[in-house]
Amino acid sequence: MDAQLPTDLPADIAALLKDDLELIPAIAQDAKTGEVLMLAYMNRQSLALTLKSGRATYWSRSRNELWEKGATSGNTQSVVAISLDCDGDAILIKVEQSGAACHTGEQSCFHNQVPLNDSAGKR
Amino acid sequence: MDAQLPTDLPADIAALLKDDLELIPAIAQDAKTGEVLMLAYMNRQSLALTLKSGRATYWSRSRNELWEKGATSGNTQSVVAISLDCDGDAILIKVEQSGAACHTGEQSCFHNQVPLNDSAGKR
Repeated sequence: MDAQLPTDLPADIAALLKDDLELIPAIAQDAKTGEVLMLAYMNRQSLALTLKSGRATYWSRSRNELWEKGATSGNTQSVVAISLDCDGDAILIKVEQSGAACHTGEQSCFHNQVPLNDSAGKR
Repeated sequence: MDAQLPTDLPADIAALLKDDLELIPAIAQDAKTGEVLMLAYMNRQSLALTLKSGRATYWSRSRNELWEKGATSGNTQSVVAISLDCDGDAILIKVEQSGAACHTGEQSCFHNQVPLNDSAGKR
């Protein structure tokens, strides 16, 4: 992507992030339904881009590049709210999801249910 | 913790996990409200324990030990459902949260709102 892209986060936001963390896990949640859609990773530049554009932009660990969600599929995520967790090492993004979040076509990436045995989930 | 604790996951669940991943980010979500409560990490043993006990158990990266959520605070997480994502490198746990999920006393760890500028969040 373009070298002119912003790399700097506003200081007040950067101050909320854990210092030595390069890749920050980012949870995308459907702002309307509350469904957790996916977990991806952001670096500071992708967070800066997300804030600037209003579209969720991650860092692809497999392709080693910035990845604006939906840039090729059209299944973009329009940002509604962003929050950081108490120790600044995780991000929650509430989004308006266009189309499916998962590349499989499922609405959420978390579609592989783990069976619980009798002792679990019944207390 | 006790060396007698189970370390083995059922084969069908282990098969859903990415092979080389030691620590798996785990999102805890309130099963009733849909609120995302926290992000922590699980290894295979903590996932096996979670499945066995029905109480969310993580791996503490700072203390380097198994960590049953709420074991000291009483703010336990009773497991309602567990799912893995499409590429087996993230876990979503729906829980009944007793008390606050965050050590700060906030219900969710994601209580640090990031201000959005005019271009974001308004499309």
